[in-house]
Amino acid sequence: MAGRTSRSGRAEGTRETILTVAERMFAEHGVFAVSNELRQAMPAETGDSADVRDWVACLVRPDTDHLAELGSPTWFARFATQVMTDPVLREIMIDETFGPTIQQTLDGLNRCLPDLPLPVRIERGEMARHLLMHMLAERERALAGNTQATASTWPEYASGLIDAITGIWLAPVTPSTSHGRS
Amino acid sequence: MAGRTSRSGRAEGTRETILTVAERMFAEHGVFAVSNELRQAMPAETGDSADVRDWVACLVRPDTDHLAELGSPTWFARFATQVMTDPVLREIMIDETFGPTIQQTLDGLNRCLPDLPLPVRIERGEMARHLLMHMLAERERALAGNTQATASTWPEYASGLIDAITGIWLAPVTPSTSHGRS
Repeated sequence: MAGRTSRSGRAEGTRETILTVAERMFAEHGVFAVSNELRQAMPAETGDSADVRDWVACLVRPDTDHLAELGSPTWFARFATQVMTDPVLREIMIDETFGPTIQQTLDGLNRCLPDLPLPVRIERGEMARHLLMHMLAERERALAGNTQATASTWPEYASGLIDAITGIWLAPVTPSTSHGRS
Repeated sequence: MAGRTSRSGRAEGTRETILTVAERMFAEHGVFAVSNELRQAMPAETGDSADVRDWVACLVRPDTDHLAELGSPTWFARFATQVMTDPVLREIMIDETFGPTIQQTLDGLNRCLPDLPLPVRIERGEMARHLLMHMLAERERALAGNTQATASTWPEYASGLIDAITGIWLAPVTPSTSHGRS
């Protein structure tokens, strides 16, 4: 029982630390603001493209360009993955990063995929966000020296990620039977 | 400085807790073994299918079936995401879960994708694994009561995930220029 109390106390402590750091980061508008400045240029360039990959690039490149500019070690991506596991912090982070530029990108993406049912659209949006976030954290971790990085540069890594996320959006939708094997 | 010392001490404590729990879980062969038993049946059924989606289902369904059988709350998926951020624990978990059944599935998948260059194959394997793991953790977290679950059942959720991961594997490969935009 002592072990259990100590573990849950430690978890609470970790959560408080994350909250404190998050408050400071949001207050200083350091990390997220820079990423948002980079984010603004791309949708305008993309214009009225009907190519899903162009819009996915608008979501991926600002983050990878930002991480490339900062240089290793960064903690931005790993921090974001921790924030996203907490329902309150997640709301704050989504509010902070969501704005007219992201909306413009999502509108462009939606125009390319008019037939995708809404629940699938929501689910794939979640999957794209998680894949992006966790793969950025993976490379950040690799560059920080713990493991081997796969792609040699952030732009190359971005290209592979954009291909994959485009693949998620364009995948055929299998009607779910909710029972039995697919 | 005191804050910094306290934070890094706390991180070390968390890592030790994870190591202790991991040791116990691997030793007892509880969680991973059950998942592996479920995993063995599918590749045999899939036989010599040339459909990527069939092989992806062999990777996804054993985990979702396992989580469905256990019933909420589970910690298996969330625990796995934490383990995967530590290079040593990651090696142990991959060794524990990797066996002839997974190999048979990956061989089947590879036969469907003979033209995919090796670095892309490795990168997409990583992406598929991360997407699967983190989306399982997301739903586990949602079912545990913190947030809203999207799909109503594990088999439905599995179907959406299998579509998306199949999309990642089948996405066209854009030659990376390593400079400039997408």
